[in-house]
Amino acid sequence: MVEPRTLALDAMGGDHGPDVIIPGAALSLVRHPQLSFILFGDEARIAPVLDRNPALKSKSRIVHTSLAVNMDDKPSQALRRGKGSSMWLALEAVKMGEAHAAVSAGNTGAMMAMARLVLRPMAGIERPAIAALWPTIKSECIVLDVGANIGATGQQLSEFALMGAAMARALFHVERPTVGLLNVGVEEIKGGDEVKEAHAILKGTDLPFDYRGYIEGDEIGQGKVDVVVVEGFAGNIALKTAEGTARQIGQYLKDAMTSSWVAKTGALLARGGFKVLKHKMDPRRVNGGTFLGLNGIAVKSHGGTDALGFASAVDLGYEMAESGLLVRLGSDLDGFHHTLDKAASGM
Amino acid sequence: MVEPRTLALDAMGGDHGPDVIIPGAALSLVRHPQLSFILFGDEARIAPVLDRNPALKSKSRIVHTSLAVNMDDKPSQALRRGKGSSMWLALEAVKMGEAHAAVSAGNTGAMMAMARLVLRPMAGIERPAIAALWPTIKSECIVLDVGANIGATGQQLSEFALMGAAMARALFHVERPTVGLLNVGVEEIKGGDEVKEAHAILKGTDLPFDYRGYIEGDEIGQGKVDVVVVEGFAGNIALKTAEGTARQIGQYLKDAMTSSWVAKTGALLARGGFKVLKHKMDPRRVNGGTFLGLNGIAVKSHGGTDALGFASAVDLGYEMAESGLLVRLGSDLDGFHHTLDKAASGM
Repeated sequence: MVEPRTLALDAMGGDHGPDVIIPGAALSLVRHPQLSFILFGDEARIAPVLDRNPALKSKSRIVHTSLAVNMDDKPSQALRRGKGSSMWLALEAVKMGEAHAAVSAGNTGAMMAMARLVLRPMAGIERPAIAALWPTIKSECIVLDVGANIGATGQQLSEFALMGAAMARALFHVERPTVGLLNVGVEEIKGGDEVKEAHAILKGTDLPFDYRGYIEGDEIGQGKVDVVVVEGFAGNIALKTAEGTARQIGQYLKDAMTSSWVAKTGALLARGGFKVLKHKMDPRRVNGGTFLGLNGIAVKSHGGTDALGFASAVDLGYEMAESGLLVRLGSDLDGFHHTLDKAASGM
Repeated sequence: MVEPRTLALDAMGGDHGPDVIIPGAALSLVRHPQLSFILFGDEARIAPVLDRNPALKSKSRIVHTSLAVNMDDKPSQALRRGKGSSMWLALEAVKMGEAHAAVSAGNTGAMMAMARLVLRPMAGIERPAIAALWPTIKSECIVLDVGANIGATGQQLSEFALMGAAMARALFHVERPTVGLLNVGVEEIKGGDEVKEAHAILKGTDLPFDYRGYIEGDEIGQGKVDVVVVEGFAGNIALKTAEGTARQIGQYLKDAMTSSWVAKTGALLARGGFKVLKHKMDPRRVNGGTFLGLNGIAVKSHGGTDALGFASAVDLGYEMAESGLLVRLGSDLDGFHHTLDKAASGM
């Protein structure tokens, strides 16, 4: 039986506000009819767009606020001025139990700062992380942290592994996800101290996933593991670099296929194949960074995305809410810290 | 006038030893007839391959050694056992002034450790770095450090900028290369302390390049700057991730173009275009990590490459040797440290 779920949407977030958020939610509703929505933001801007989406309108209510976080606000500014904003209220709805997940295409730094304050880190989590879905030649994997923090201790990296595994279990429906620790391949410098410490913890502890040791950057896209653990600076750079490389090759391909009339004709004939490729490389398919380690589910969509992309973020919020991930993660964290404490006390 | 240049090659390095090194050198010789070579390694294995390359043979001499560094030796092992090995002797030939550059396809960690010991860091360099050539939609850029060290202080990152700029000047023939500092895009955590410190130094100091501030991972391949500065852990992960993404998309493309008979026929017709693409994406075109910041030029080729790829590394060694880079970098470093000292003493 499919249970009804409510999502709290920041209708003002992103570069286009309600004009993308509303059609995006409408798309996701088609795929998940059990959804209903609370739309936070400027009613005068939301209502007319909602009127054009009657199916969504019948499953939504608007909570008006004239406050919105700007895309270029610093987190500190957003915290000072953003209480009562559409982003804040969406997160608060999750905290209050009125919604199962919050989704925003707004400013990432502001959203992370607010989510920490409103939802609070789970017991046993030193630092929340942002997890990204990463397309692989097999299907998808989860990479975290892609930018919530710079640097991480060995224990924090181990907590990322637990968080990522919980997400993999929820999304990929595998009981013991495989987990790898991202490292560099140059023997001399292999592993900073934190990475080595995390490796020792993950290898030596009985954990609810299948730890596969170190993996390198070129193995992420090969789908070698379900979860890739890395600190936020390198993780963010890896994610952006992969996106940039995909765009760069897309440009090469376009140039190559228009380099001659024969190539153009061939490309036209092969357009079915190119469509498959375009679909696989479409960044909107896996749009959405998930905030993990908080007492509630919050998903951040790309700010510049369109309705199709925002719908993916809404889908992600729904799947996460559906999965009972937080309860399971809570008990995994308890077990992990219990084991660490026992090891520390020499028992 | 083109002056003769001598390169010292580790003929035993890489997965295939002389069978790749010798034909690779022969290819490079065709492009640069002013080259001559010293080939270090097992004469019994080198001589027969050299006999099949008479043009190269007439420009080469073999220096026999039965010692070779294994691809899986740890740097510490290589240092203990590797004195007198083909890799060691190639580096020593540069130190002695017998060769203008050393090229090896051997073990990176071992080569960096030996190069530090044999060639020594330049005055004013705290840490040598490994620089990679990175293809962009415009042409190429230089990214460093891609794995000589984990972590870097603000001053070390600034030295990387000077080193990278010297290399860009040598290879791209621009007097004031543009330089960017790789950073993450999430406002809240923008810049670790070291990155911020480097930014302040680079912005506030009169330097022989055009500092353009922060850039993000997706801008590397766009060719936004000539030189991208990053500490070695994130740099290595970025490089590997880009390589992996390119391979992944190559796989998507192959699958897409064989997904139907029509697509196959189109792809056949468009094969000229695909050839252009394949050439652009060929990792052998930009094979070679350059060790920067040492008193001598050393280039590391991928271990698994073929003759074409090794020839690119030899070309790179030649171009670096040709450019008078070390002299210019030495004077740039003097100027930089002079300015820093003046600033520190408040003059």
